Amino acid sequence: MSITHIEHIGIAVKNLHEAIKFYEEVFGLKCYAVEEVADQKVRTAFFMLGQTKIELLESTSPDGPIGRFIENKGEGIHHIAFAVTGLKEKLEEVKSKGVRLVDEHPRKGAEGLNIAFLHPKSTFGVLTEFCEKPE
Amino acid sequence: MSITHIEHIGIAVKNLHEAIKFYEEVFGLKCYAVEEVADQKVRTAFFMLGQTKIELLESTSPDGPIGRFIENKGEGIHHIAFAVTGLKEKLEEVKSKGVRLVDEHPRKGAEGLNIAFLHPKSTFGVLTEFCEKPE
Repeated sequence: MSITHIEHIGIAVKNLHEAIKFYEEVFGLKCYAVEEVADQKVRTAFFMLGQTKIELLESTSPDGPIGRFIENKGEGIHHIAFAVTGLKEKLEEVKSKGVRLVDEHPRKGAEGLNIAFLHPKSTFGVLTEFCEKPE
Repeated sequence: MSITHIEHIGIAVKNLHEAIKFYEEVFGLKCYAVEEVADQKVRTAFFMLGQTKIELLESTSPDGPIGRFIENKGEGIHHIAFAVTGLKEKLEEVKSKGVRLVDEHPRKGAEGLNIAFLHPKSTFGVLTEFCEKPE
């Protein structure tokens, strides 16, 4: 029941196609997957960079969480996701220590991971995700 | 001359002491160093998490970059730092591809690294740092 590494960093972009091109041509990274997560109203593009993925997020609807984020704050870093072992117990643990949970229980996220978000109001302004690979 | 991994993620906080306590007691990470970077008007605290560091940043002055960031946007993720090889050449390369540089030439950052920042206006809203270990 611990945090092992940074699973990914989520970055909100207006135009996924242009952002992929930038990360490939300017930063020299390779996009290995594009996936739509319908219930979050996003299309995502993934790049592997050492242990950690860069996850670009484009909203498929202005009223989705990424659409609202960009409207309020502009493009930029949206969240950090920690890879954890024992996700369910870890959620209980941080809740017992005063952290407000966005997701009380793990749900399915991109790439088939079990995920849950913590509220940025209780994590020093950082929207934080915990991820665990399903067994 | 390439990006190898995410060297660190910089997070702006109002109170370094409280944030360190949170990362240690709630997330179970261990702060291994606190360092003041006078010319950036910040005090930083570092946590190792796999390949990547979490760098908490507290402003030592309201008119420093972190003080202004918190005033404008609140606490939260401030920048991503990529570890690169061939920093000088990499800066020239991204500049030739249209990226606006904050630092035209590498300078010294925390932990003795050679660093340079790219302007978020040309990197999809993400304040991006390149870091290289000195030889």
